[in-house]
Order: sequence, then structure tokens, then C-alpha cells
Amino acid sequence: MSIYIEPLAKLVNAFSKLPGIGGKTALRLAYHVINAPEDEICDLVDSLKDIKEKIKYCSCCGNFCEGEICDVCGDSRRDKSVICVVKDPRDVIAMEKTGSFRGVYHVLHGTISPIDGIGPDDIRIKELLGRLDGTKEIIIATNPDVEGDATAVYIARLLKPFGIKTTRIAHGIPIGGDLEYIDEVTLAKALDGRREM
Amino acid sequence: MSIYIEPLAKLVNAFSKLPGIGGKTALRLAYHVINAPEDEICDLVDSLKDIKEKIKYCSCCGNFCEGEICDVCGDSRRDKSVICVVKDPRDVIAMEKTGSFRGVYHVLHGTISPIDGIGPDDIRIKELLGRLDGTKEIIIATNPDVEGDATAVYIARLLKPFGIKTTRIAHGIPIGGDLEYIDEVTLAKALDGRREM
Repeated sequence: MSIYIEPLAKLVNAFSKLPGIGGKTALRLAYHVINAPEDEICDLVDSLKDIKEKIKYCSCCGNFCEGEICDVCGDSRRDKSVICVVKDPRDVIAMEKTGSFRGVYHVLHGTISPIDGIGPDDIRIKELLGRLDGTKEIIIATNPDVEGDATAVYIARLLKPFGIKTTRIAHGIPIGGDLEYIDEVTLAKALDGRREM
Repeated sequence: MSIYIEPLAKLVNAFSKLPGIGGKTALRLAYHVINAPEDEICDLVDSLKDIKEKIKYCSCCGNFCEGEICDVCGDSRRDKSVICVVKDPRDVIAMEKTGSFRGVYHVLHGTISPIDGIGPDDIRIKELLGRLDGTKEIIIATNPDVEGDATAVYIARLLKPFGIKTTRIAHGIPIGGDLEYIDEVTLAKALDGRREM
């Protein structure tokens, strides 16, 4: 790195710590910054500084929010009796983009993963149990991987005594997918989850 | 974008103005920033703020530098009688990485491009003519594209009356390249530039 002068080396180094940004991309970004208009870089600096202090988590569901309660929890038109359980605030954004869910969320902030030392007490499961009053359905929308499935099974078992309907989002062939190229686990799941027409 | 709360939307927007960063990548970077350790983000913010003020251009060759003269021009072991002409300071870094050039540079800060309204007076050609004293060879290493070639031809013509040897870096098949897949213009150039073995 000694070919770069120090301020450039520092910026390249800082950029390459971001996910998916390798040395070459970091260098390209740094060159862009050097030639970019002052106010574009000011905007970036300001939003980087702001985000850590300005982003809070909803005291009810754990979603990103600016105040005490997030936009979804604070929306009186949302059906509070259906709770969709997700791993991460970004999953809330993905769900909201579909525009087809009118209930509320519960963000776990992680999934159970014994390998990483993350147990049920390390994610927001207690908080979920504390807000079941009036709940008719819990939709578990954790990712279809080992940790997501384990977490889903764990929560479903916990909820059993409460007599609340607990569902899991469907796994199967994505729209536009091709049977020929789909992996066999997904195909097996799709067969398993077949529905009458 | 109304799904995102404002500080997140602002950061995503600022990131997506960087080259090669689309909406999805910008969102991924923003999520990373939210969860990244404080000092990693401080480093990034500091180097972004610093780079604009700290990066200067060498008064002799136009390369990036921190002081008055860049590291190459200030190095007494470099051969000042051979000047390699490049378009951009980043080309200097690319050349330096080869480790096989021991002369000095001249950075044009652009190439002649009538379409973009960039004429010979808009790039650092005058400055090149002003430092020809004692120069034995000028190597023109602008990119092998229309603008780069036009600039090379222009400079070569200007230098003719001075009687200085003017060369152009070779164009041909890159090392590890495959004749079958190389484009025909490059292959023609490679044939053209063949050398006796």
C-alpha cells in the first residue's frame, strides 16, 4: 500500500472494510471521492455520522424507528392481532415492500445459533411472549436456513400452550423459477407444501 | 423509498451516488454501518473529510501528493530524463505497481476529447512542454481508446521539432490472454506491433 500517499491509503482502507468492497473497488470509490463535488461528500459524511445516533429500535416490536414507536406499530390501520416474527429490521423492509401484509411485526434481532453461542435468551423471544395479549396469529418468517428453522420450531413449541395459531411462511419455488435449475431441497419443500387447486 | 425511515433513506441515497453502488448494495452498506463498531465508522468519516483538503497535486508532474512535490519527483534515484505521460494520477499508481519504470511522470489530468469540449489547452500539455530540458525520451502511456490515441498523436506532433524520442506503450494481447477470445482490434494491433525474436 506504500504506493498510495497516506490520506488516500487511509480512505481506501476504510472503504475496504465495508462488506463486498475489495481493494480495487475501494480505490475506485476513493478516486471518485477525490473528484466528486464537495456537497455530495458532505451529504455522505453527515448521514454516516447521523445514522448511529438517529436510528433507534421500536420499544414494542424492535423495528428501526426514529422515536419511541415505529411507523408500523404506530399505524392504527394495522391489524395488531397478527404478528409476523422476523430475524432482522431489514426483513421488515423486505416484507413491507410486498405491500401484502397488514399486521404488525416482531423483530428477534438474531436467530438461535448454538455454534455462535446465541441461545433463546439472546434474542427477543421474551419480548414476544410479553405481547401476546389479543394475538390471533403468529407468522414465523425467519429465513429458511438451519438457524431460522430451529428458531421457528423453538418459538412454535413455546407458543403451543397459549393456543395461538402459529404459521410459517411457505417455502417453495420462487416465481419465475425453473424446475430444472432449482435445488433439490427447495423442490422437496415445494412438493411437501403443495396445495389443492 | 418511503419504507425506510429518514436517516436510513438519507444514507442509502448518499451511498448510491458512489460509482458502481446500486440501491441494493447501498442498503447493504447502510445496514453494515448501523451495526458496525463506532470507530470503524469514525475512521471512514475522518478519511472522507480529510481527503479533499489533504490531497494536493505535484507542482511538477501533477501527480497526487501531500506537500509541494510528489514522492516520485522528489526521489533522486529516479531518472528525470525519461518522462512517462499519463492521463490520470491513478495511472501513475498503476505504473508504479509494475515496479519496472524508473523515470518520472507527467499527468495530463484528462485527454483531448472534442465531444466533451476538452481541447489541448484544457489538459496539462503546456506544462509538459515547459519541462523538456534534459529530457531524452517521452513515453506516452495514455489509454488505447479514441481520446487517448488522439492525445498521443497530438503530443507526438508537438514534440517533433524538439527532436526528443517519443514512444507509445505497446498494445497487444495481455499476458494470460487467449487468441480465440481476444477482440480483433487488439489482435490486429498485436500483429502490427510484432517484434523479432
